[in-house]
Amino acid sequence: MASLEPDIQPKAEPNPALAAQAAILARPATEERRMADAVRALAIDAVEAAKSGHPGMPMGMADAATALWTKFLKFDAADPRWPDRDRFVLSAGHGSMLLYGLLHLTGHAGMGIEHLRRFRQLHSPAAGHPEFGEHPAIETTTGPLGQGFANAVGMAMAERLLAARFGPELVDHRTWVVASDGDLMEGISHEAASLAGHLRLGKLTVLYDDNNISIDGDTSLSLSDDALKRFEAYGWAARRVDGHDAAAISAALGEATKSDRPTLIACRTIIGFSAPKKAGTAASHGAPLGPDEAAAAKSALGWNHGPFEVPEGLREAWGKAGRRGAGAREAWLWRLAEHPQRAEFERAMAGRLPEGWNAPLAALRAKWAEEKPKLATRVSSQRALEALVPAVPEMVGGSADLTGSNNTNVKGVPAVSPGNWDGRYIHYGVREHGMAAAMNGMALHGGIIPYSGTFLVFGDYMRPSIRLAALMRQRVVHVLTHDSIGLGEDGPTHQPVEHLASFRAMPNLHVFRPGDAMEAAECWELAVARADGPSVLALSRQNLPAFRVDAGENRCARGGYVVAEASSGSRRATLIASGSEVQVALAASDLLEAEGIPCAVVSLPCWELFAEQDEGYRAEVLGEDALRVGIEAAAEFGWSRWLGERGLFIGMPGFGASAPAEHLFRHFGITPEVAAAAVRKRLAG
Amino acid sequence: MASLEPDIQPKAEPNPALAAQAAILARPATEERRMADAVRALAIDAVEAAKSGHPGMPMGMADAATALWTKFLKFDAADPRWPDRDRFVLSAGHGSMLLYGLLHLTGHAGMGIEHLRRFRQLHSPAAGHPEFGEHPAIETTTGPLGQGFANAVGMAMAERLLAARFGPELVDHRTWVVASDGDLMEGISHEAASLAGHLRLGKLTVLYDDNNISIDGDTSLSLSDDALKRFEAYGWAARRVDGHDAAAISAALGEATKSDRPTLIACRTIIGFSAPKKAGTAASHGAPLGPDEAAAAKSALGWNHGPFEVPEGLREAWGKAGRRGAGAREAWLWRLAEHPQRAEFERAMAGRLPEGWNAPLAALRAKWAEEKPKLATRVSSQRALEALVPAVPEMVGGSADLTGSNNTNVKGVPAVSPGNWDGRYIHYGVREHGMAAAMNGMALHGGIIPYSGTFLVFGDYMRPSIRLAALMRQRVVHVLTHDSIGLGEDGPTHQPVEHLASFRAMPNLHVFRPGDAMEAAECWELAVARADGPSVLALSRQNLPAFRVDAGENRCARGGYVVAEASSGSRRATLIASGSEVQVALAASDLLEAEGIPCAVVSLPCWELFAEQDEGYRAEVLGEDALRVGIEAAAEFGWSRWLGERGLFIGMPGFGASAPAEHLFRHFGITPEVAAAAVRKRLAG
Repeated sequence: MASLEPDIQPKAEPNPALAAQAAILARPATEERRMADAVRALAIDAVEAAKSGHPGMPMGMADAATALWTKFLKFDAADPRWPDRDRFVLSAGHGSMLLYGLLHLTGHAGMGIEHLRRFRQLHSPAAGHPEFGEHPAIETTTGPLGQGFANAVGMAMAERLLAARFGPELVDHRTWVVASDGDLMEGISHEAASLAGHLRLGKLTVLYDDNNISIDGDTSLSLSDDALKRFEAYGWAARRVDGHDAAAISAALGEATKSDRPTLIACRTIIGFSAPKKAGTAASHGAPLGPDEAAAAKSALGWNHGPFEVPEGLREAWGKAGRRGAGAREAWLWRLAEHPQRAEFERAMAGRLPEGWNAPLAALRAKWAEEKPKLATRVSSQRALEALVPAVPEMVGGSADLTGSNNTNVKGVPAVSPGNWDGRYIHYGVREHGMAAAMNGMALHGGIIPYSGTFLVFGDYMRPSIRLAALMRQRVVHVLTHDSIGLGEDGPTHQPVEHLASFRAMPNLHVFRPGDAMEAAECWELAVARADGPSVLALSRQNLPAFRVDAGENRCARGGYVVAEASSGSRRATLIASGSEVQVALAASDLLEAEGIPCAVVSLPCWELFAEQDEGYRAEVLGEDALRVGIEAAAEFGWSRWLGERGLFIGMPGFGASAPAEHLFRHFGITPEVAAAAVRKRLAG
Repeated sequence: MASLEPDIQPKAEPNPALAAQAAILARPATEERRMADAVRALAIDAVEAAKSGHPGMPMGMADAATALWTKFLKFDAADPRWPDRDRFVLSAGHGSMLLYGLLHLTGHAGMGIEHLRRFRQLHSPAAGHPEFGEHPAIETTTGPLGQGFANAVGMAMAERLLAARFGPELVDHRTWVVASDGDLMEGISHEAASLAGHLRLGKLTVLYDDNNISIDGDTSLSLSDDALKRFEAYGWAARRVDGHDAAAISAALGEATKSDRPTLIACRTIIGFSAPKKAGTAASHGAPLGPDEAAAAKSALGWNHGPFEVPEGLREAWGKAGRRGAGAREAWLWRLAEHPQRAEFERAMAGRLPEGWNAPLAALRAKWAEEKPKLATRVSSQRALEALVPAVPEMVGGSADLTGSNNTNVKGVPAVSPGNWDGRYIHYGVREHGMAAAMNGMALHGGIIPYSGTFLVFGDYMRPSIRLAALMRQRVVHVLTHDSIGLGEDGPTHQPVEHLASFRAMPNLHVFRPGDAMEAAECWELAVARADGPSVLALSRQNLPAFRVDAGENRCARGGYVVAEASSGSRRATLIASGSEVQVALAASDLLEAEGIPCAVVSLPCWELFAEQDEGYRAEVLGEDALRVGIEAAAEFGWSRWLGERGLFIGMPGFGASAPAEHLFRHFGITPEVAAAAVRKRLAG
């Protein structure tokens, strides 16, 4: 296969891509080239119409994508949600017109010419970047680089997990990715690729758009990696092909389908292929070509059709490609109809929880109401998992190399290992970001409810992926332990201070911080039941006494509630706390009540749910006329919402320190005595 | 050199490391081994005394570290801040006792036995993880994995930049790193290593503690990378040695000093070396050995001394090693004394800004007061940089492959390239996290004020490193453009919503969001002047009209101020905004004033500085009795602090959408008309 490598040299003048491009354009125009040109033309037209967008990538990768979509990708445009379809992930999401063009041409409903004409306009499914939920064939939201790549690793893991559970007759599909230089420069690509290589995800194939161009210019400005060698070091198969040679690409794709290792195919391409001036330059990356260059590009392709026009012959060829998988899908439907696990498969893929899924948890809660166990919430979380994981077979756990600290494992539930998927626990390694993105991929794939663990402070490493889970409304659960200075000696690098606030600021994320075992179980129930978004469980390292002895209603469901009403008279203060500080509030209240200052104690394990309650309930809980006091071993940021302007806050003034936990609580003044004194003083003043 | 590889096989039983350990212990005990044993014994003792900590790593890496510190590392314990010292970074910060033991033994003041006895106690310089500022020889705060590694890349870059500026007679030192499996699993290691390889940082050497163990157990649970091949793919030199063979290590270190590429030395070690039961297992990683195992470990070493005791002979040998660099330092001081750039070198290294550094900026501001330019703040930021960068030669810019969007480059200021350090701009590539951590390293090195660029939304990718800059109080400046839905069509993945809040929640970080050109210049002045912490500049993509026409006082210095007082009577409402929404507030105020509703408009470009003002000033600005209305194209989280319970907020209800910016502002109701209507209704109600 011809390599373009010698022709495309960085920084040389004049633009050396143009000679290579001329040579490619001089090749006989096969039907495959014409089909690819249709993708190019639509990308050019849509970006021109929108007056913004990224034409260069679709123009460069059209040949490779056409080979994939017409010969290898298993799909049926008639049912883009067919569970056993191959997954296609456009990690380089800025090239969204590549995907929209392919969806349109293959005949997917809901991606008509009228939608492409409204590329990047309000309410169009053809958004600036592919957005999950805007069209059923969009597998994941991409754009933030590296995320799609790592989602795909999770999808390929989900495929293996479900194949182990339901058998290859129901689950046997591949995952394909188009990734850019930027995707591979991002650190998350290291974590995800290393994990994929370790787990030998042979059904994962990445087409790397190896075009030597990034936004700042030639990649030689910042990049000298030998990408093939790098991926081989991860245990991948890796090769480079001419990305404009359909036969070479098809051969490489064929090889990939036989590999027992994940495969990287570096497609050497010319960004903005066919544009006579901008091809091979960053100028074609992120802006319309402009009318003249756009016309000249089409002319170079021999594309003589008007904007958004596709000749009937090509439409037919593409339409046929769009139904290539119809027979496979029909056969699969027959297999499903007769499959003994049909109902269970359909239930899991639909994201419906099993009948009675929370009964074991209810039993545990009833037991705890009796026993009042004093447990760290990371330990009560583990007990809750022992009740949940056997009852909810789609739950798949893991930890970023902190299993014993996060308590995310469940006895008798094996971990997966390379080649053995008969497990429901993942040793993700020290790869928080890759873990979170892979979990998104598993949730998006369907049939899996992923949960994971690391320290709360390292939630920062996962933040870009958690944000995407929130944006895509995916059910993923992050167990984030060691949630305050209560972790002690490891010091300020490991002590979250601002993390509760920063996660609470994120739209559509539920942040749970239970204060005792009962609340931990309740929060787990809410997180698993939440089908339309991610949850974070912030859990203590240290033991916490039980304050809840009622097991009926899930009281955390309202986000906040009165744990103890004032007993010595009508409330003068409301002490509002979460997690380990509920006990500080209770003890402070005891001190104050003993002095005749009536206090209520409120537990606020989930701000987002509390905010959803009606104003009357909130006012009743917070106490309209009482002094409101927030107690949380964290930054004050955000607390004003509940405390009002006259409120008091007892918490962290800044970063933590290295010392035993009890010394730190005293040092930072997060104690019942300090809280009581502050209330006393304020009420006297 | 002997390799331990065949002996340490994952998961075999019984513990295969023990045979290898026995073989090593049977070797003749050289003085070097004895010196290393002193490091081991101190680590064992300190962790036992603290009843917590990580003995395994220091015990495993003591031999390699001893070879480095006694033969290669250029330092003088008498002056740990000697500017031309080699930098030593313990990226695997959990093994902090390795560093403290070395500092103690080499005779550094302020790390006496009394400090080691108080390992991990409040106010001890021997904190759980190395904390910058706790001892002058601690080069950086480490613990969050991968960060130290990437800091070191920045330090090595700083060395090259300063050597280019001041010559090798003042700047000629190396950077050494001890890194763990976890460091290399983190994505940031990919970004930093790839950048280091690209830039050919030959004076950077990483000793990889290749011990096959991570917290969850054997690394084979989650890792199959060929680390050597991986680093070779980045353009590094890479080799593996027996990490307990001092001669082999020294030979490898010697080779590294001759390399024109960065070097990875994989030291095959036994974690917890000498512990008869726990060596080679995760049990020695993160917990005290326990008295019996500790005693047995010392006995296996032939170490017959009491806790924290070091025999005089070894003390002398170590003390001598601690002054090895004294001669080099003295010679350097002579060279400095005679150097024509002495004053400038000392000024830059001390972090003092040049005399008159902000005069060009003042001139620009005076000009803008006249011209009232309508510019995007990312563009006025660039103009400010054109005034600052020539006047402040230690400023070194860059971008994570968004130079043309972030406007971080300055005409006439060249970029560095592999082998050519005569520049002050870095093409970081699509490596936000690596960039931020490298910037921390540059700031820590001294002599550089790094600033960088990416989109605000990708601030999430850098968050763990920004946190460390805040914790270490380092002057780094992040230019984060496209700061709202104002970025338009790229859609919700690229539109920050919660990022202002999440950064405002972080202790010691200043978040600036200027509203016009004048404010952009003022915020830049404050960010550069801020010697004790990082700053973020959140800047608009879209043009913003000027509202400031006064250029005297830097009004942003107070964090918030009245832009326009109510004119039709005494204030009934205060419209408080930042950035691009100040103009929305001004236009809303015009509408309301025209109806006879007197409104003041407040610009709040920096909450942290505003919070530092006295209560009287804040009350005057916010208007005690007025209706307070926050207007910001962002999440409401945190605004209650300024708005009170009766306040109104006009902003983003959740994630954004893909559409032209002006459509989005209308769609989300962030317009003067909507704001005015809300105020009108509330005041009527």
